[in-house]
Amino acid sequence: MDIRTPGSEATTGRSLGESCGIVSLAESVPVGYRLIQSLRIIQHRGQESAGISINTGNHLRNYKGMGLVNEVFSGVKLERDNGLGIGHIRYSTAGSSTIENAQPLYSNIGKYEIAIGHNGEIVNALQLKKVLESKGYSFTTNSDTEVILKLLSIELSKTSDPVLSMKNTFKKLVGAYSLNIIINHRVFVARDPNGIRPLAVGTTEFGYCAASESVVFDQLNGKMLRDVRPGEIVELKKNEIDSFMYNDKAKTAHCMFEYVYFARPDSLLDSRSVFETRMELGRILARESPVEGADCVVAVPDSARTHAQGYAEESGIPLTEALIKNRYVDRTFIMPEQAGRESELDIKLNPIKQLIDGKRVVLIDDSIIRGNTTRKIVKMLRKHGAKEVHLRIACPPVRFPCYLGIDMKTKDQFIASNRTVEEINSKLGADSLRYISLQGLIEATHLGKDNLCLGCLTGRYPVSIPRK
Amino acid sequence: MDIRTPGSEATTGRSLGESCGIVSLAESVPVGYRLIQSLRIIQHRGQESAGISINTGNHLRNYKGMGLVNEVFSGVKLERDNGLGIGHIRYSTAGSSTIENAQPLYSNIGKYEIAIGHNGEIVNALQLKKVLESKGYSFTTNSDTEVILKLLSIELSKTSDPVLSMKNTFKKLVGAYSLNIIINHRVFVARDPNGIRPLAVGTTEFGYCAASESVVFDQLNGKMLRDVRPGEIVELKKNEIDSFMYNDKAKTAHCMFEYVYFARPDSLLDSRSVFETRMELGRILARESPVEGADCVVAVPDSARTHAQGYAEESGIPLTEALIKNRYVDRTFIMPEQAGRESELDIKLNPIKQLIDGKRVVLIDDSIIRGNTTRKIVKMLRKHGAKEVHLRIACPPVRFPCYLGIDMKTKDQFIASNRTVEEINSKLGADSLRYISLQGLIEATHLGKDNLCLGCLTGRYPVSIPRK
Amino acid sequence: MDIRTPGSEATTGRSLGESCGIVSLAESVPVGYRLIQSLRIIQHRGQESAGISINTGNHLRNYKGMGLVNEVFSGVKLERDNGLGIGHIRYSTAGSSTIENAQPLYSNIGKYEIAIGHNGEIVNALQLKKVLESKGYSFTTNSDTEVILKLLSIELSKTSDPVLSMKNTFKKLVGAYSLNIIINHRVFVARDPNGIRPLAVGTTEFGYCAASESVVFDQLNGKMLRDVRPGEIVELKKNEIDSFMYNDKAKTAHCMFEYVYFARPDSLLDSRSVFETRMELGRILARESPVEGADCVVAVPDSARTHAQGYAEESGIPLTEALIKNRYVDRTFIMPEQAGRESELDIKLNPIKQLIDGKRVVLIDDSIIRGNTTRKIVKMLRKHGAKEVHLRIACPPVRFPCYLGIDMKTKDQFIASNRTVEEINSKLGADSLRYISLQGLIEATHLGKDNLCLGCLTGRYPVSIPRK
Amino acid sequence: MDIRTPGSEATTGRSLGESCGIVSLAESVPVGYRLIQSLRIIQHRGQESAGISINTGNHLRNYKGMGLVNEVFSGVKLERDNGLGIGHIRYSTAGSSTIENAQPLYSNIGKYEIAIGHNGEIVNALQLKKVLESKGYSFTTNSDTEVILKLLSIELSKTSDPVLSMKNTFKKLVGAYSLNIIINHRVFVARDPNGIRPLAVGTTEFGYCAASESVVFDQLNGKMLRDVRPGEIVELKKNEIDSFMYNDKAKTAHCMFEYVYFARPDSLLDSRSVFETRMELGRILARESPVEGADCVVAVPDSARTHAQGYAEESGIPLTEALIKNRYVDRTFIMPEQAGRESELDIKLNPIKQLIDGKRVVLIDDSIIRGNTTRKIVKMLRKHGAKEVHLRIACPPVRFPCYLGIDMKTKDQFIASNRTVEEINSKLGADSLRYISLQGLIEATHLGKDNLCLGCLTGRYPVSIPRK
Repeated sequence: MDIRTPGSEATTGRSLGESCGIVSLAESVPVGYRLIQSLRIIQHRGQESAGISINTGNHLRNYKGMGLVNEVFSGVKLERDNGLGIGHIRYSTAGSSTIENAQPLYSNIGKYEIAIGHNGEIVNALQLKKVLESKGYSFTTNSDTEVILKLLSIELSKTSDPVLSMKNTFKKLVGAYSLNIIINHRVFVARDPNGIRPLAVGTTEFGYCAASESVVFDQLNGKMLRDVRPGEIVELKKNEIDSFMYNDKAKTAHCMFEYVYFARPDSLLDSRSVFETRMELGRILARESPVEGADCVVAVPDSARTHAQGYAEESGIPLTEALIKNRYVDRTFIMPEQAGRESELDIKLNPIKQLIDGKRVVLIDDSIIRGNTTRKIVKMLRKHGAKEVHLRIACPPVRFPCYLGIDMKTKDQFIASNRTVEEINSKLGADSLRYISLQGLIEATHLGKDNLCLGCLTGRYPVSIPRK
Repeated sequence: MDIRTPGSEATTGRSLGESCGIVSLAESVPVGYRLIQSLRIIQHRGQESAGISINTGNHLRNYKGMGLVNEVFSGVKLERDNGLGIGHIRYSTAGSSTIENAQPLYSNIGKYEIAIGHNGEIVNALQLKKVLESKGYSFTTNSDTEVILKLLSIELSKTSDPVLSMKNTFKKLVGAYSLNIIINHRVFVARDPNGIRPLAVGTTEFGYCAASESVVFDQLNGKMLRDVRPGEIVELKKNEIDSFMYNDKAKTAHCMFEYVYFARPDSLLDSRSVFETRMELGRILARESPVEGADCVVAVPDSARTHAQGYAEESGIPLTEALIKNRYVDRTFIMPEQAGRESELDIKLNPIKQLIDGKRVVLIDDSIIRGNTTRKIVKMLRKHGAKEVHLRIACPPVRFPCYLGIDMKTKDQFIASNRTVEEINSKLGADSLRYISLQGLIEATHLGKDNLCLGCLTGRYPVSIPRK
Repeated sequence: MDIRTPGSEATTGRSLGESCGIVSLAESVPVGYRLIQSLRIIQHRGQESAGISINTGNHLRNYKGMGLVNEVFSGVKLERDNGLGIGHIRYSTAGSSTIENAQPLYSNIGKYEIAIGHNGEIVNALQLKKVLESKGYSFTTNSDTEVILKLLSIELSKTSDPVLSMKNTFKKLVGAYSLNIIINHRVFVARDPNGIRPLAVGTTEFGYCAASESVVFDQLNGKMLRDVRPGEIVELKKNEIDSFMYNDKAKTAHCMFEYVYFARPDSLLDSRSVFETRMELGRILARESPVEGADCVVAVPDSARTHAQGYAEESGIPLTEALIKNRYVDRTFIMPEQAGRESELDIKLNPIKQLIDGKRVVLIDDSIIRGNTTRKIVKMLRKHGAKEVHLRIACPPVRFPCYLGIDMKTKDQFIASNRTVEEINSKLGADSLRYISLQGLIEATHLGKDNLCLGCLTGRYPVSIPRK
Repeated sequence: MDIRTPGSEATTGRSLGESCGIVSLAESVPVGYRLIQSLRIIQHRGQESAGISINTGNHLRNYKGMGLVNEVFSGVKLERDNGLGIGHIRYSTAGSSTIENAQPLYSNIGKYEIAIGHNGEIVNALQLKKVLESKGYSFTTNSDTEVILKLLSIELSKTSDPVLSMKNTFKKLVGAYSLNIIINHRVFVARDPNGIRPLAVGTTEFGYCAASESVVFDQLNGKMLRDVRPGEIVELKKNEIDSFMYNDKAKTAHCMFEYVYFARPDSLLDSRSVFETRMELGRILARESPVEGADCVVAVPDSARTHAQGYAEESGIPLTEALIKNRYVDRTFIMPEQAGRESELDIKLNPIKQLIDGKRVVLIDDSIIRGNTTRKIVKMLRKHGAKEVHLRIACPPVRFPCYLGIDMKTKDQFIASNRTVEEINSKLGADSLRYISLQGLIEATHLGKDNLCLGCLTGRYPVSIPRK
């Protein structure tokens, strides 16, 4: 799918939330470099900025910068820490890509130092901000995370009790949040009452860890213990974890898009394998929308590879790696203005002609957002001789904005927003276009309709979205 | 395969040749940025340095630097050129990674300016260098390409005839060379009499092109015309190409390793599809070395994916994407010395446990050089529950150095050099290990035994290798 | 003098204030680049970081970074502004040299955006901070400027009146502050009731300006109008300036060290020429502490040049430029650890032997803080043959910390703190050492004893210094 | 003087020579970092590039880069060397500022490795180059130094005798050259038969040194031994120096401009103090061209400070530091194109008004080349109230190109080239303009007319200049 299309103006005006990844550690060894390595494991969740906050014994020490983890931290010498720390990576969005918004965000108040990393989006952030401003609290960023940080600081100064402060703070928040928080010598993670964004806890070789995706535990020679519960705060200690529930009444609403596209296939999210879900999406899609007499199934690499495998398996149509992705062109390349505009897609993807030429191709993509890339791939396949191109999409049409942590903000950007499937295909130019059904998507996740956030598909969100 | 293992000390002492990629253009539009984009297409052939030489009307202008094309050229403003130019990317090798060795190499003599890019390796370079030195010719690098450049300059100053000068020069060279050469306003490419390294000519939207791999023509909206013949010089003009044969007696000896590993699967090399060859290698391997009762075929991503597809197709054992590659960890990351050494492989690859656990796995790799990575992957699969791991390798054991352009120089680095297959497997730790037969490899290429360079497998090279 | 000696650990723990420079503009043309150029004019007041905040029509836009103005802003494209902006440069101090402390500091509250630049130091900052923290206000830096910013934001949210908010805020502050503040479309400067740090307003070619030193007006083709009065707020508009007095009862206490060392000689501070003051210091020093039969007067370049000129003029002893300063060694040079430690001073200064050899030298320095550099210069002169070296210092012994904006914080760092002049000279190794008298210093400034801050000389400060 | 005025197009087309500085060391300790520190001492002789070549035991290792020494070498880890090495800094000229031209230049031939650094200019370089090219020798730069390197390499391959090879090579050269050369384990310096560019040998704490200026020996705790003789080769060994004369017939012709402007005042050049020469130039100028009733003497800082001191001393008119130079604006600052063009001079220099206002000023500059800066300074003084400005220049009018190592190449760039003094002053706008006489200049140097190169003043050069 094409969510990261260069030049995409996904957000207009000031953004208050993005997709991100978090990792927290409490270990008997210094964690600074281990946090950095762990962030590299989930780098796919955010490429705009990276940061860590570690406890050096006396103080929290923040390191952060713009870019990939290797760009920010390559060669950086960290102060030695005492085994407690949190890390964060932030997704690249148009507009407000500045170091001020890089996380963890930091503040100090009295004897407390606080750093916080946030994956998700607070839908009532502007309302909360206005209330705070009316009381004289000023802000230094336009991030919704600063609102959480400010509320938490105020509570801390009142109660001197970190857990109580978090509970009081979280009760005011509406929206999606998987948080990692370090307050002096204590490391916490928390998850919103709907469990919209993923978050899990696990062991490591030297202690405990919490992370957006379970793959992190593997790399640290540990094991996943469990998902953080919706409405739960977990404190990570070096020898144990403590649990504090602050809300257990909300209905779970896990983001379906994590399964469809965002998470790594080798992750388990809320006890469900991402890989298995994608295979199942492919199988269901094959049953719902077969292509009689097709010669081959082709995936849009790399994200739709598993879905295509499921489709091929179920349909019996052979899967071929007919689109070759250039591994090097993900990297930023700035062409001076005088240069002719070559298509970046032409450099990124190239078909193997003999696998396409004269063939009836089933092209599988995980999802379609804007449709620009999909249109170009269809055209590319035809140019290389494809007789027919049948598009099969493993996610129902995305028609509504996400307010809960995925950077899809305005309806204008969705090719599906005011179009029928027929109309969409007239833009994309395939011989046929079919999306998986909503029911099929739900079935594949094994989570049940009532436990999923399907807001971007249905316009019905698990929390009430304020008019801004 | 593990040729690029970090820390590999593949070459000892001074290296006189590496694998590389070249692109030349003669077009009715400026070619500077088009050369750069084309180099990105074949970036897999070399990541150490990148450079171009373009004709600005009066002079040749060289631009080069260390690193990937995007690192060297991102944001660089080029002088406007007149549609003539050559480009080069160089493979990273241990030891002599300096800007002086980045190509194209440049020289001027009288009214001539010359720039040259070289893919391959001249085996009699040291002998030629000594002769030149005895006549008072000095050198500024330890590159074999400078020897070619010096010989060509001397010939040019004698004959004032570019084509004759090249012919005279090439007759002295023994080894592998696909060259691109710009002499003032004339752009040439040439290929050694054995055709060891690939080189093809094609059209573009605006003129003619020559490139190491045919994928470049696709990106420039052109078509492959043909391979450059062994022993041929081709001059690229804006409206036509001219051919000059300087040696048509040699036996062709195309590098088998280009098909097995080095080239892109979507390239055609000497009229043979790389993709098809890899599929065929997999199929033959399946026939030669089946694994009865295996549960799944798993490829070492990304390079062995096609071979694995062939193996799966032939054997009927399902192919699964059980090893997930982290797309971001190819990038250089420098850990300060005080940091604990985490395994880069653990960050790079992660298995999907449920696809491995309790399974009898056929693990396909394209080739094994040192074996370090292979051993770790076998161990990783076992750790995630694999019941059995059967290694199947789509290239016979590499036991001899390559002197003709692939950076495999000393026997010590090869796990297979003095070991039986049994002994190799005792190092790798698989349940079984089988290599494809030499005959199977030859069959898969469709080129015939007599048209392949199999030096690294047999120790018999198409040209005589001087003792150094 | 040696205040900037590398390796100086002037401040221990967390610093809450440093010397700096500020410039504000309200003009009928965009001011972004003009602010940058103006900051270069007063670069001597701070080399650690540089920043500007400009009004782009809808919002304030901040640009800041670590290093010299040319390092931070070279090649930077600014958003177009509407003629309103402020700029700041910050002095390099040990310990807390981080981008978070770079100014202007920014915050937003309700409809207000505020940016603030500060030259000086708030002595009751910690007390004010504690009060704010007890009310739930958290901080993101350890800068005393953030305390001012926070107080001002709170007042603004209460009163919605920028001038009243500033008045209310300033009444709480004890210490030294010359401030520039931009609140949405309004640009203000203010000076503490004692006028400790300099600040002046002037015209420019296109409007009005305020700056730490009057040299800025020259460069902008304008004229100095007057000093900002102690206890005054001045609003800069494009066509006029408005004055608001918030405190006119305090006794003026201008920092004597600005005249002795810190300011540019071509500046006028509080109507008194820095150049004239330094000449006068030299003349008085010559009268108070003559050196009978000396051969030459030599200045420590560049800062003592004017003082030496005065001494030479008064004494009749010829002034010679016998110490040659290497113009390039101010720049940072990082020697790898394995390199031998060469003396940076040996590279920085070199005597002209024939001017020194066999001579009785009067060596003039503006002041002595730690004494390390002075000792080395005395030794250097002797090594080149000086028969006698008589040290004459144009500032009385510095024996007490500055809490009001100069980075001299702990008594340990002063060579004079617990020593008689005789004892000091036993460390410095001169044939004789004389300081100007306190009376002489006061006389030279023409300001009167009661209008000077002499805290670092007498330990008596113009404001009450809280025990920390 | 204004030789370095930004935007100066001093050289048109391809330059074959520039002013530079060299340092060579043979010591019992590693010299890499000591060479770097020594280059910083003579940084004023060249700011474009810096490089060293050191012997690591088996090989020469080159390090070079564009920019100041601190920019090129800050933080660079050098390989350990055996105490032998050479260093070079190159002056910034328009046009050919590329890394290829950075020195030392390197070549290898047979068993010899050679690196060479050059201060000066070979006037028959093009002729020599053509001869070499006709014999098949090609070039990789447009530097005249490469011609020397090539000739030397050829001789070495013939004779295997470094000293003989240098002698044979130097006999072919016409022009100015102070060279440092390392050939494997032997370090040499040489000076052209006219001794046009300076070069001296001295001791250090650990061995022997040769350098463009004697200040280097001071810094290395050594002493100047003597100037290298015109036509002499000196070999530096760790315990001794050897001398080889290859030409002792030529007439010495030391560059007068080194004394007037280029060298450091604390250097001794050919036994004559630069400082003393400049004082004397000022005194003679005062005698030749007094200004009756002037109020003050003002130097253009920093280069004319000594000349002004001499003028003041002789005339009895007081010297005042009325022009304040901003120490930070020498550094490169790139203003984006959209920014208004502020005068860099206005930022660089500022007068002290009270020293100028109503005064009759004698303004001393060391020399005038283009005159742009001088004109602006005159205007600046008038703007600040100067009643009269009388320009006195310590060098006769520069009217002819320098072909021997100073970057003044075309007559068009000289304000004096086709103008009388009266006409020049009508451009500069002073009340009067006087240059020192040629006789006065000669007298001040104490070297005698026949021992000076006065080519840029008289058009008569010590060597025959070929028509290009």
